[in-house]
Amino acid sequence: MYKKRFERVLAKMEERGLEQILVMDPNSIWYLTGYQNNPMERFYALYISASGNHMMFMNKLFPIPNTDLECVWFTDTDDYIGILASKVDSEKTLGVDKVMTASFLVPLMEHNPNCKYVLASDCVDEVRAVKDETEQGLMRDVSLINDKVMESVESFIHEGVTELEVGQFILDQYKAHGCDGGTSMPIVAFGAHAADPHHKTDSTVLKEGDCILIDTGSKKKRYSSDMTRTFFFKKVSPKHAEIYEIVKKANEIGEEMVKPGVKLCEVDKAARDYITKAGYGEYFTHRLGHFIGLKGHEQGDVSLTSKIIAEPGMIFSIEPGIYLPDDFGVRIEDLVLVTEDGCEILNHHSKELKVLG
Amino acid sequence: MYKKRFERVLAKMEERGLEQILVMDPNSIWYLTGYQNNPMERFYALYISASGNHMMFMNKLFPIPNTDLECVWFTDTDDYIGILASKVDSEKTLGVDKVMTASFLVPLMEHNPNCKYVLASDCVDEVRAVKDETEQGLMRDVSLINDKVMESVESFIHEGVTELEVGQFILDQYKAHGCDGGTSMPIVAFGAHAADPHHKTDSTVLKEGDCILIDTGSKKKRYSSDMTRTFFFKKVSPKHAEIYEIVKKANEIGEEMVKPGVKLCEVDKAARDYITKAGYGEYFTHRLGHFIGLKGHEQGDVSLTSKIIAEPGMIFSIEPGIYLPDDFGVRIEDLVLVTEDGCEILNHHSKELKVLG
Repeated sequence: MYKKRFERVLAKMEERGLEQILVMDPNSIWYLTGYQNNPMERFYALYISASGNHMMFMNKLFPIPNTDLECVWFTDTDDYIGILASKVDSEKTLGVDKVMTASFLVPLMEHNPNCKYVLASDCVDEVRAVKDETEQGLMRDVSLINDKVMESVESFIHEGVTELEVGQFILDQYKAHGCDGGTSMPIVAFGAHAADPHHKTDSTVLKEGDCILIDTGSKKKRYSSDMTRTFFFKKVSPKHAEIYEIVKKANEIGEEMVKPGVKLCEVDKAARDYITKAGYGEYFTHRLGHFIGLKGHEQGDVSLTSKIIAEPGMIFSIEPGIYLPDDFGVRIEDLVLVTEDGCEILNHHSKELKVLG
Repeated sequence: MYKKRFERVLAKMEERGLEQILVMDPNSIWYLTGYQNNPMERFYALYISASGNHMMFMNKLFPIPNTDLECVWFTDTDDYIGILASKVDSEKTLGVDKVMTASFLVPLMEHNPNCKYVLASDCVDEVRAVKDETEQGLMRDVSLINDKVMESVESFIHEGVTELEVGQFILDQYKAHGCDGGTSMPIVAFGAHAADPHHKTDSTVLKEGDCILIDTGSKKKRYSSDMTRTFFFKKVSPKHAEIYEIVKKANEIGEEMVKPGVKLCEVDKAARDYITKAGYGEYFTHRLGHFIGLKGHEQGDVSLTSKIIAEPGMIFSIEPGIYLPDDFGVRIEDLVLVTEDGCEILNHHSKELKVLG
């Protein structure tokens, strides 16, 4: 499996005319080697070379990997960027990872000033974006859990509940379903709070007429889920109901377009145009979707500037929203998996307008 | 307070001959403006200019800050690096933050190829390293909690307990003491696990003769604690007791040296030399200490390569260790605050060898 992933990365490098790249995203290194490490602020990299001279750059504080790859070991007090600079080909373009920080990149440039540096994490991210069958199965499983949790949230919503209580209920449900750690507080936004797409869940109490926006996901066996639903409490105004239906339709328009060969910028445009024609374009303030997998937000998006063309195996979100400041907000989000002739929607929780309580 | 911090940063910039820097560490931006934001993968920066033309680069998804600073707003689909490139002085050296990722830095270099880029986060980090009185008070308070928690851990240790149970007990204690979120599982390492300085706490059960290494910290009101103690369960071998005393003495040697004017590399050297003379130099595999404050690990360390000279207000750890593979490990860590004529040790939990149970 790892060999196949390496080959796909090397093919991407060849397409771009790159002979050497430095992978620094720990998830990408795990994806390519099976070795898990959290380097914190320490230097940690997988060097991939077209010549086959791959190397792992490892601090002696890291656990020893079970790998055939050459390991270059150093301590905190070694000049590890100098070591790195001497090991890469200083005359050839070096592809660097988007997550490489200036703390390492600027000194590397000072060591090897003749080297040209370009962003190259796409060589790995584009491979990660197309999930193999094992990954598709894991993504399906973790999204099914998300459906079940959203179902139980509907029953949990009650008079007097706070955003944080709903959030904690969701986290407890994930734990009960065997989801792994690393799950952060979901976005639970009541009423006007939902107008902030990134609202920080707080102790606000639910009121009659509030919308209830819940954007939530977890991880199981390393893979992530992500879904948003918006409900209403006790009653819904005609205006709020109308806006809900606009967002729901935009979500459906987006999802219906997803199939191999479609440009993701056109999927964003179709959903966005629908919202704009309905008069709310300026209140849809973010991209339509993002890729997902080992992380909740992976490289690649569904936006007006996206250059990605859908391929079978890709998984991303479709999540249009309308946010009216000081009033309310609606977002409806599913994950979709591109299939041979369309897409499979990984979330099954109903999107019909629901008034709870 | 923020004005004073800005002035200290501008003075550091002048020392280095820098007229413009880009601050991207969200903690640093909070430290300088009081504005809290978690940008995730989105671009977020505070531009500081010697001319006084400071700017915040803000995605429209971020909450609106309560600030007098000029805000440059953009959306996910704008060419925000192009906007940034047009706002900075493209003919002058630009100081960049060590946390700036290649995803932003490489395209900025492509936009402004004539600009010289240097690392400049030291201009802020060196200011953050010297805590003002408010910060010193908060650091004292959160370390006092850490003392209390370590005291209660001693009573909690019992036959049959697992590393994870001890870790969870510690997290519960922090919560009871009002520590904020963001606290991750402490390092709890029994027996041979303690030989890995970064051991991942697991479900191993405590056995007679095991050492119990506990490296733990929390946060309260944004500021961090960090302390390590190593105990033994039911009995301790003469060899383990001897090594314990060597580490304890190295810790004391380090702490006794700390006062204004001392080079931190010499503090590391003194503690390290003591361990080396005792025959265990090769088993002390990391630096003696690290700075701490808004983050558990801040810029600045106590190591052989550190160029830092102690100044009143600095807070860092002193944490020598000896790690014998497949056998056991000892680390003893306190936080120290540099005072006018020496240092104040922020941790008070006893360092005498203790056999529990």
